Amino acid sequence: MNSVKYVYFFGGDETEGDRSQKELLGGKGANLAEMTRLGLPVPPGFTISTEACSGYYNVGDAGSWPDGLEQQIREKLIQLEKTTGKKFGSGKDPMLVSVRSGAAVSMPGMMDTVLNLGLNKDSMDAITQITGNPRFVLDAYRRFIQMFGNVVMGIPHHAFEEAIDRMKTSRNIDLDTDLSTDDLKILVDEFSSIYNKEIGKPFPVDPWIQLKLSIDAVFRSWNNTRARRYRQINEITGLIGTAVNVQIMVFGNMGEDSGTGVCFTRNPANGENVFYGEYLMNAQGEDVVAGIRTPEPIPTLRNVNEAAYEELLSIRTVLEEHYLDMQDIEFTIEEKKLYLLQTRTGKRTVFAAVNIAVDMVKENLIDKKTALKRIPASAFNQLFAPVLDRKSKEHADLLTTGLNASPGGACGRAVFTAEDAEEWSSRGEDVILCRKETSPEDIGGMSVSKGIITSRGGMTSHAAVVARGMGLPCVAGASSLIVDSVSKKMVCGEKEIAEGDLVALDGFTGEIYDGKVDVQPSEILCISMGESDPNESRLYLNYSILMDWADEYRRLGVRTNAETVKDTGTAVDFGAEGIGLCRTEHMFFEGDRIVSFRKMILVAEEVKILRERIAASDDTSSLEKELEAPLADYNEAIEELLPLQRGDFIQIFRELDGRPCTVRLLDPPLHEFLPNDSQGQLEMAREMEVPIEKIQRTVEKLHEFNPMLGHRGCRLGLTYPEVSDMQVRAIMEAAIEVKKSGTEVLPEIMIPLVGHPRELEISRTRVQDVIDAVLIEKGLPADFIYYRIGTMIEVPRAAIDAARIAEYADFFSFGTNDLTQMACGFSRDDAGAFLGDYVRMGIYEKDPFTSIDVDGVGRLVEIAVEEGRKAKPDIKIGVCGEHGGDPESIRFFNSIGLDYVSCSPFRVPVARLAAAQAAIDIATQD
Amino acid sequence: MNSVKYVYFFGGDETEGDRSQKELLGGKGANLAEMTRLGLPVPPGFTISTEACSGYYNVGDAGSWPDGLEQQIREKLIQLEKTTGKKFGSGKDPMLVSVRSGAAVSMPGMMDTVLNLGLNKDSMDAITQITGNPRFVLDAYRRFIQMFGNVVMGIPHHAFEEAIDRMKTSRNIDLDTDLSTDDLKILVDEFSSIYNKEIGKPFPVDPWIQLKLSIDAVFRSWNNTRARRYRQINEITGLIGTAVNVQIMVFGNMGEDSGTGVCFTRNPANGENVFYGEYLMNAQGEDVVAGIRTPEPIPTLRNVNEAAYEELLSIRTVLEEHYLDMQDIEFTIEEKKLYLLQTRTGKRTVFAAVNIAVDMVKENLIDKKTALKRIPASAFNQLFAPVLDRKSKEHADLLTTGLNASPGGACGRAVFTAEDAEEWSSRGEDVILCRKETSPEDIGGMSVSKGIITSRGGMTSHAAVVARGMGLPCVAGASSLIVDSVSKKMVCGEKEIAEGDLVALDGFTGEIYDGKVDVQPSEILCISMGESDPNESRLYLNYSILMDWADEYRRLGVRTNAETVKDTGTAVDFGAEGIGLCRTEHMFFEGDRIVSFRKMILVAEEVKILRERIAASDDTSSLEKELEAPLADYNEAIEELLPLQRGDFIQIFRELDGRPCTVRLLDPPLHEFLPNDSQGQLEMAREMEVPIEKIQRTVEKLHEFNPMLGHRGCRLGLTYPEVSDMQVRAIMEAAIEVKKSGTEVLPEIMIPLVGHPRELEISRTRVQDVIDAVLIEKGLPADFIYYRIGTMIEVPRAAIDAARIAEYADFFSFGTNDLTQMACGFSRDDAGAFLGDYVRMGIYEKDPFTSIDVDGVGRLVEIAVEEGRKAKPDIKIGVCGEHGGDPESIRFFNSIGLDYVSCSPFRVPVARLAAAQAAIDIATQD
Repeated sequence: MNSVKYVYFFGGDETEGDRSQKELLGGKGANLAEMTRLGLPVPPGFTISTEACSGYYNVGDAGSWPDGLEQQIREKLIQLEKTTGKKFGSGKDPMLVSVRSGAAVSMPGMMDTVLNLGLNKDSMDAITQITGNPRFVLDAYRRFIQMFGNVVMGIPHHAFEEAIDRMKTSRNIDLDTDLSTDDLKILVDEFSSIYNKEIGKPFPVDPWIQLKLSIDAVFRSWNNTRARRYRQINEITGLIGTAVNVQIMVFGNMGEDSGTGVCFTRNPANGENVFYGEYLMNAQGEDVVAGIRTPEPIPTLRNVNEAAYEELLSIRTVLEEHYLDMQDIEFTIEEKKLYLLQTRTGKRTVFAAVNIAVDMVKENLIDKKTALKRIPASAFNQLFAPVLDRKSKEHADLLTTGLNASPGGACGRAVFTAEDAEEWSSRGEDVILCRKETSPEDIGGMSVSKGIITSRGGMTSHAAVVARGMGLPCVAGASSLIVDSVSKKMVCGEKEIAEGDLVALDGFTGEIYDGKVDVQPSEILCISMGESDPNESRLYLNYSILMDWADEYRRLGVRTNAETVKDTGTAVDFGAEGIGLCRTEHMFFEGDRIVSFRKMILVAEEVKILRERIAASDDTSSLEKELEAPLADYNEAIEELLPLQRGDFIQIFRELDGRPCTVRLLDPPLHEFLPNDSQGQLEMAREMEVPIEKIQRTVEKLHEFNPMLGHRGCRLGLTYPEVSDMQVRAIMEAAIEVKKSGTEVLPEIMIPLVGHPRELEISRTRVQDVIDAVLIEKGLPADFIYYRIGTMIEVPRAAIDAARIAEYADFFSFGTNDLTQMACGFSRDDAGAFLGDYVRMGIYEKDPFTSIDVDGVGRLVEIAVEEGRKAKPDIKIGVCGEHGGDPESIRFFNSIGLDYVSCSPFRVPVARLAAAQAAIDIATQD
Repeated sequence: MNSVKYVYFFGGDETEGDRSQKELLGGKGANLAEMTRLGLPVPPGFTISTEACSGYYNVGDAGSWPDGLEQQIREKLIQLEKTTGKKFGSGKDPMLVSVRSGAAVSMPGMMDTVLNLGLNKDSMDAITQITGNPRFVLDAYRRFIQMFGNVVMGIPHHAFEEAIDRMKTSRNIDLDTDLSTDDLKILVDEFSSIYNKEIGKPFPVDPWIQLKLSIDAVFRSWNNTRARRYRQINEITGLIGTAVNVQIMVFGNMGEDSGTGVCFTRNPANGENVFYGEYLMNAQGEDVVAGIRTPEPIPTLRNVNEAAYEELLSIRTVLEEHYLDMQDIEFTIEEKKLYLLQTRTGKRTVFAAVNIAVDMVKENLIDKKTALKRIPASAFNQLFAPVLDRKSKEHADLLTTGLNASPGGACGRAVFTAEDAEEWSSRGEDVILCRKETSPEDIGGMSVSKGIITSRGGMTSHAAVVARGMGLPCVAGASSLIVDSVSKKMVCGEKEIAEGDLVALDGFTGEIYDGKVDVQPSEILCISMGESDPNESRLYLNYSILMDWADEYRRLGVRTNAETVKDTGTAVDFGAEGIGLCRTEHMFFEGDRIVSFRKMILVAEEVKILRERIAASDDTSSLEKELEAPLADYNEAIEELLPLQRGDFIQIFRELDGRPCTVRLLDPPLHEFLPNDSQGQLEMAREMEVPIEKIQRTVEKLHEFNPMLGHRGCRLGLTYPEVSDMQVRAIMEAAIEVKKSGTEVLPEIMIPLVGHPRELEISRTRVQDVIDAVLIEKGLPADFIYYRIGTMIEVPRAAIDAARIAEYADFFSFGTNDLTQMACGFSRDDAGAFLGDYVRMGIYEKDPFTSIDVDGVGRLVEIAVEEGRKAKPDIKIGVCGEHGGDPESIRFFNSIGLDYVSCSPFRVPVARLAAAQAAIDIATQD
């Protein structure tokens, strides 16, 4: 009746899936099948597809299996029994299985694993018979109760942990492995009664029931809060569910010739081409990942089991050459024999990503395009994240050293719970989260911390993996620390760090410092800024190579938003091809300039009102007389600003050395330049020697209900044209001076907030008149300076009416921040009240201020591009909103044919990379 | 070389123009040509085209004549000399001409007329010789100096007036006509020296110079402040300039058998089909219009010159039958012979327009479509303007009676200058402008007044014409009043009215009252509301007929914006076909409801925060416990509102009697419901027995920087869904109750401020769930009530993404107020700072909040309609912003295929008319 295939077998020649089926079988399932096909030693099993999980939620009553699923699982169990010659949870040679979740994208927040499934009184007896190892069987069973009880039935971890701890204390031993067979027998009984007490039923003995409940739990875990938050934080969308892998058990805890481990084909922290990883003998997989015992580095495995080590080394090569990417491999050794339990693309820091990508091109494994696509553009900025200052470190107080689990440096206040991390950070403090070990519940607290320290766990512990993913520095397994989250402190020998004390960590070296250590720009930044030698940094060299490749493939230009010489210089060093947005108002806030500017504002309103009366009057002579005095003050204040602005532009034009510079004329409403509080007004009155009432009156007059939609942008220029005149004059005079001194210039004058073509027509005419006047004054030909006059498209009306606006514009630059506010109808300052809910409800997949809302705001941009080009095919079009530095948005801007993006200086490399990736993707589609 | 024809002759068979050439020859010029062609007695002349005026501004240096113009004028002068056998300003029979401006649209604000041009020493002598009337010649010359000096050279009127007044005082006479020949001789000398003094040159004697300067002055007058303001106030756009008419002089002031007059083919005040007008014997044209002497009613002309009167009567018929509309005719009688100087479509009050249009259909002069098109939709609302209350009038103190120059009633504070009118009215006072006579300089003051009183001038005086145009009540020529604008009072016998005293006027009867008289709704309104008998009102009957015709032709539905039973009733009486916008929040402000609503707000934030924490937490049980108390308070406050809202809807649904009712769910941000000032907060705290700090905290928390773009509309419904739930429940319970009682209902639930399809999807699902729940509770079938669920399109993003939004909407209703704010990026509350400048600069031709900005906001509406219909062809689409009552906007909405408009109750008739006109225009185009 039901023909949907839900279950896929893997094992020998009967393997049904392959690596291409990640969506259907999850990453783990697809790769288990693939490795089996490659002839690698994978324990057989089967994978229940993600469609089954989706069916669990959508078919009929939510929470029941889709038709046919149970039948198919039962069939595959029989096939598995045939393949292994064992009987599931019974008989003389009982078959035990593991159950593991596995979505198309790895999700640590989800239910992970139940091992040893199939154990009960009968199968335990049989296995004891076979192995002659009652201790092993008891240990396996107590682990099974614990895992099943916790992950399937939701019994808190600590219920079991406390029982173990009590037992260990009473026996005066440290390690689980020191527990005797008798101890374990008691523990198993205790675990059973904990289970019975918590659940109200005895632990299930029927292996089918054990399996069914476990599969249900995996299905359910897909939608638990943790998993949903993980997907949200990591922006994972479009998946239909998780797959479930049921696989024959192999045991790493069958004694000292057994073991388990995790390894990477290259170093995931720095990308070095060495075999990297760690293992524990006589342990099951979760012992490595959970960070309870600190594991051994992989090279020492050669001493323990040389054959297995050599086999692993050759598997390393096979897998890299097959997958053409760095792999993360899980293995188990059962009584000396090696089994592979998982391979997947290894997560890596962006530092490692850069080095691995460039290395692999050199090794002829991949091509340049693939290398570029391998770099996560959204994390690329971590390359420029702060590190601990070398000199400051020399004088600092080294507390201890742990594993260098995630690169970068950080200094902040120690906190000991995730909640405290969130609370302190919400008060604006930099915090370092210090934990014994972290767990998925800590994700929120980790994401707001500047760095993570753990006392337990290795390079693949939860803390290490998550920190690398988030680009946070992390020192893991600093075992000399005793972290106490209850009394909120940590102790290292005689030293005690309390909540709120300053600590620092170096994720490159694993060092932890007591007290303040300065942080400084990253390696790449130091070199970019000429403070270190590039040849000493493999990372910098590879980064440069990668950036060259990016420039080779990208079509979009990359400019920067900058208004200081320093920022301009930084951006140019980072490869910016010009300034896409120079906000002139920032220049008015500097130093004494604000005084002249405020003087201008105080009299501007008076001038405006008189002019309106003159325009409306037939007899203007007396009014014109009345205007004389305020107009003189007004012009005087403006004139004071001219040389200052001119000086700014001269410096910036010099720094740009002929690159284009888009200067935006005054944009914010005038009230932003006046103090709002009475204290500030009093000071201003004193400083400027005007009565405070005058200031208050002006502030009141300029008050706006919705400043976002107020008297700003070109509206200012049209009402107070002398201010724009001065700015245009400053730009042109600066350009002339720089050009005369032998440096090329390319000024682009941008008129902001245009909504109607006539606004631009009038403004442009005025700008043009000033330019002409300046050139005539200086006795220069009209073409002495090549310049452009254009506008920002940031009002929805402008996007709609772009064809007519283009008539008066040499260029468009999209101000997507304001365009988003007006198009979506929410103010950035106020949207906090509901935007969180909105992302949670899936109304916007992402904050539309971070990544452009393609279907709405993006569509407006697209319309404007189409209309603008229709009217003027050679019009230059760029974007200068913050989206200009966001990789997803850049992909969109590339797809609709913009000429360039402009972003903050530090995002220039990201933009170059993202632009290349976008271009490569489009080329691949063609 | 230059082949443009600028000058067009009229006279006998040589007439070059005709009535179709209004754009080119102006209204006056085209009609002079047309009347000549009809064989009517028109003095010959020529018309200089509007293209010449345009050339004056645009060709070469602004302010010089375009090539060929002078040559053509000289040729036509020669032709005129040939036709008349006279010589221009010289010879034995000198030819004198008039120069009159005349644009395609009549513009009283422009330079009007220079008469008697061609007079100088020589021609005066010659004419004295011919006429034997030296007094006439001297009077003509002093008028010429005065007019030329004033309108061509800009010498203030009073310079000359004072000289006349001095002369009259010294001679102890009242009227100009009583001045003797010798007096005039002295006056001419005095005028000449005034001219010489003011201009610094003697008065020009060369008739060509006189003509050239006069033509220049007409060209210049096109762009003077008055003319520009007139065009702006009257929304006249798209004209290129004025024409200039040069015409042989005929003299109404050649003695007692000469005269001049103005008449209308029907009564322009009430539309009665009687010959109507006035004349003055021994006077020139401006004497009638200027209102200096009060003229005689036209029927008395029969006694003075029966032949001329009979000729005029027959011309009345000829012109009406030719032009098929009421005409406004200027004539002059020169020594008993009648000449026509102008005919044009007569301006009329909207009362007259309604009566004339319906009458003319009955008389088979025009068809119904033409009748409908003749009614100025923008002025239609004057039909419902207030009138003086009859009973209040009986007890009021009648001051005097003047001419009933413009209908309507008004009461307000007397002011005596236009400036004072503007000032008092800016303080919120109703003012009545009282003047001796008004002039174009008074336009601003007139437009802010509630009514106009003048002591001089007739039905065609400036005051009367402008007041009728503005729809203001006016009593003109109340000659017993002495108005003194210097000491700011007016005297009537013993009574004195000072500035600020209350006066009232009745424009239907010409009565002026001292003190307060109540104003009441208009005739039509009284009848519409059942307070008077319709059969007693010709106006009401004609209005009803017209409205029936409108309904016959219109395609757009007309609904109303209403939230009270009273407004709903009014709107239905006015022909509304349902409610297009019922704003539920207004209901929360009424009476005690605000208390419950505020109670809800105070606790809502607490509930919201706890819910967010629950959503983000794994362990929710303690938080859920914490939520219990506030949630109970919250739900209790909401429940208190349910019966009140239900009661509102029951009443409205009953009143609508089956017509559709679009109910908008809560829209404004919550802070609008809380007092912002500490006094109000204190009162609220006392009343609600909560600490004031709690109120302050909530106000602070809810504060928004840009409330327009804040937490409102569906964003509220998504965050505080229980409030919308209650509203939906109230709507459905009310609908069920009304329907069960036998009255049909059609509720339409409208979700506001949707920007993203998913917002509507979620909101709609919730609304649907509540509806289902209510029906199930009541044990009713799902189809018991037919209802619709839809959304407002008011966020630009929604317009762009309308196809996807339409999936979840049964209807769209455009909220064009907010759409304009967001699309144009200006807040209605703040735009005052620049919108005036913008309209002045021609950036927007009209305030885009009054008339929809077709190219921007309109285009967004159009896109949304296209996209919405593409996704759902049968979706209902209307508009409920204020543009729904604006005729121009209605024309646009009709053109893009909306289903209906919704407007305030009083605009329903306008909307019906405008919708019919729009439909007729489209049908005519096809």
